Amino acid sequence: MIKYSNGQNFTKKPEKSSKFSINSTSFSHSNRGMNLEEDINLSNEYYKANESCLVTKRPTPINVVSVDYTKGAVITNAYFEKQSTTDYNGVYKGRYIDFEAKSTQKTSSFPLANVSKHQIDHLKHVLKHGGIAFFIIEFAKLDQVFLLDASYVIEYFENGTRKSIPYQDVLENGHQIKKGLAPRLDYLEIIEKNYMNS
Amino acid sequence: MIKYSNGQNFTKKPEKSSKFSINSTSFSHSNRGMNLEEDINLSNEYYKANESCLVTKRPTPINVVSVDYTKGAVITNAYFEKQSTTDYNGVYKGRYIDFEAKSTQKTSSFPLANVSKHQIDHLKHVLKHGGIAFFIIEFAKLDQVFLLDASYVIEYFENGTRKSIPYQDVLENGHQIKKGLAPRLDYLEIIEKNYMNS
Repeated sequence: MIKYSNGQNFTKKPEKSSKFSINSTSFSHSNRGMNLEEDINLSNEYYKANESCLVTKRPTPINVVSVDYTKGAVITNAYFEKQSTTDYNGVYKGRYIDFEAKSTQKTSSFPLANVSKHQIDHLKHVLKHGGIAFFIIEFAKLDQVFLLDASYVIEYFENGTRKSIPYQDVLENGHQIKKGLAPRLDYLEIIEKNYMNS
Repeated sequence: MIKYSNGQNFTKKPEKSSKFSINSTSFSHSNRGMNLEEDINLSNEYYKANESCLVTKRPTPINVVSVDYTKGAVITNAYFEKQSTTDYNGVYKGRYIDFEAKSTQKTSSFPLANVSKHQIDHLKHVLKHGGIAFFIIEFAKLDQVFLLDASYVIEYFENGTRKSIPYQDVLENGHQIKKGLAPRLDYLEIIEKNYMNS
């Protein structure tokens, strides 16, 4: 699943300048238009450098149809595949962490259309095997980012009649993530407080 | 890093028929030419279906240069990037698992040229954070597959003067993985016995 800073268009169509690479993280701190994905990638780099935890982003799955070897293995025909898992996973104090990051421009609710059945199934498996599973949800216009346990999103997705999670519910059941320079989004602090003593 | 069943050519050049997708796993059991990667993918599917553990393969990172939107987001120019992590990670009983799979045609040793510095660094971080880290090494001509703890490969990689790990050392320090129909490679049995009581 490809995400955009505008948060509303979760189609597979990327911006032309996008690079689908885990290596394309920019360390420029001057970019005000930095999106959620970049903030998380920078936070993960910070955590890695500080040896707090190790979380990596899964590359976007791409199905390669043809490759031109005369030019040194240039891919000439390929298409994006649907991410069947989540964007991020990693390890903290031996525990498995798995999460998906989503941004929305809405201010009153988080639309569940942004979440796929595949991702819900994946996160259910993670929980079944004792992993720590959650969503990082950004309300871009409110400039607020929350960590919301996957079990809560799963329940809404499977049993709810609504097609979105009200902002008020995210506020009450999630944990607001502190923003800063480094880490930009300190989600690990929330994991430490809420997941490590159980 | 792209792997081949012949195990000797670990360049970035793929076979033309290769699909770089986590969704391309085939369930045909009649294919005798099935390679190590396919065996592991099938084992992971088996483990998932049996709710033993959840291990997924990271997609091959691809840097997209240009996309043709007139044809519905067809990638027309892209290139393979070096995998900076490992091929597989997942969760078993809450614990984080991370490993790389390599096959060799050699019978007397496992060449370390198959392993990148990036992967060694990644696995060192995994160990530092309490994750379970290992290599699955296939000696294709011997029809033998071993699970070898990452710490052992790291030591050879960093301190060894040799450019390979002798087969005898893999035999003595690794754990031979039982082959079967389902799972095709029962590496989880080894994890349960050797990593879960510590």
